[in-house]
Amino acid sequence: MAASEGTILIGQKPVASYVLAAVTQFTLGSKRVILKARGRAISKAVDTAEVVRRFMEGKVNIKNVNITSEKIGEPGKERVVSAIEIILERKE
Amino acid sequence: MAASEGTILIGQKPVASYVLAAVTQFTLGSKRVILKARGRAISKAVDTAEVVRRFMEGKVNIKNVNITSEKIGEPGKERVVSAIEIILERKE
Repeated sequence: MAASEGTILIGQKPVASYVLAAVTQFTLGSKRVILKARGRAISKAVDTAEVVRRFMEGKVNIKNVNITSEKIGEPGKERVVSAIEIILERKE
Repeated sequence: MAASEGTILIGQKPVASYVLAAVTQFTLGSKRVILKARGRAISKAVDTAEVVRRFMEGKVNIKNVNITSEKIGEPGKERVVSAIEIILERKE
């Protein structure tokens, strides 16, 4: 499982960078690519997932979308941010 | 079904406005509240869902999260934006 699964953390780069990373992982044989993002990067994760899905039309599905809350920051200065995890899966 | 289901479109207002709208709908008897957002408002929809879930801890679940692409704009000037739909459901 580990060898055929990759995780991409969505941050400050443009959507195209993450799309390229995901498509590359699928091309190199990954069965699943998991996109993770927090806070304002969440919209970018959704954009990335949709662009990959449309680009690899018929080959990649959005398997699942999970949203959660995460605590970040140092002890005493913690704050809660929303997070998203989008699981893209290659069809057999 | 119609009477016990509400939809909230997430836009430019602060997260607290949408949280209040969702909590109010549940309080008035809705079984489901659907949050919809496009583009950069997607992050706000996820924030809203997480705040409602934590605020109504044990009473409201995130039932499902769907992401899609939508065409917007006038004919000839259409563009594609990502969209999210988050279904919050009250536990029985």
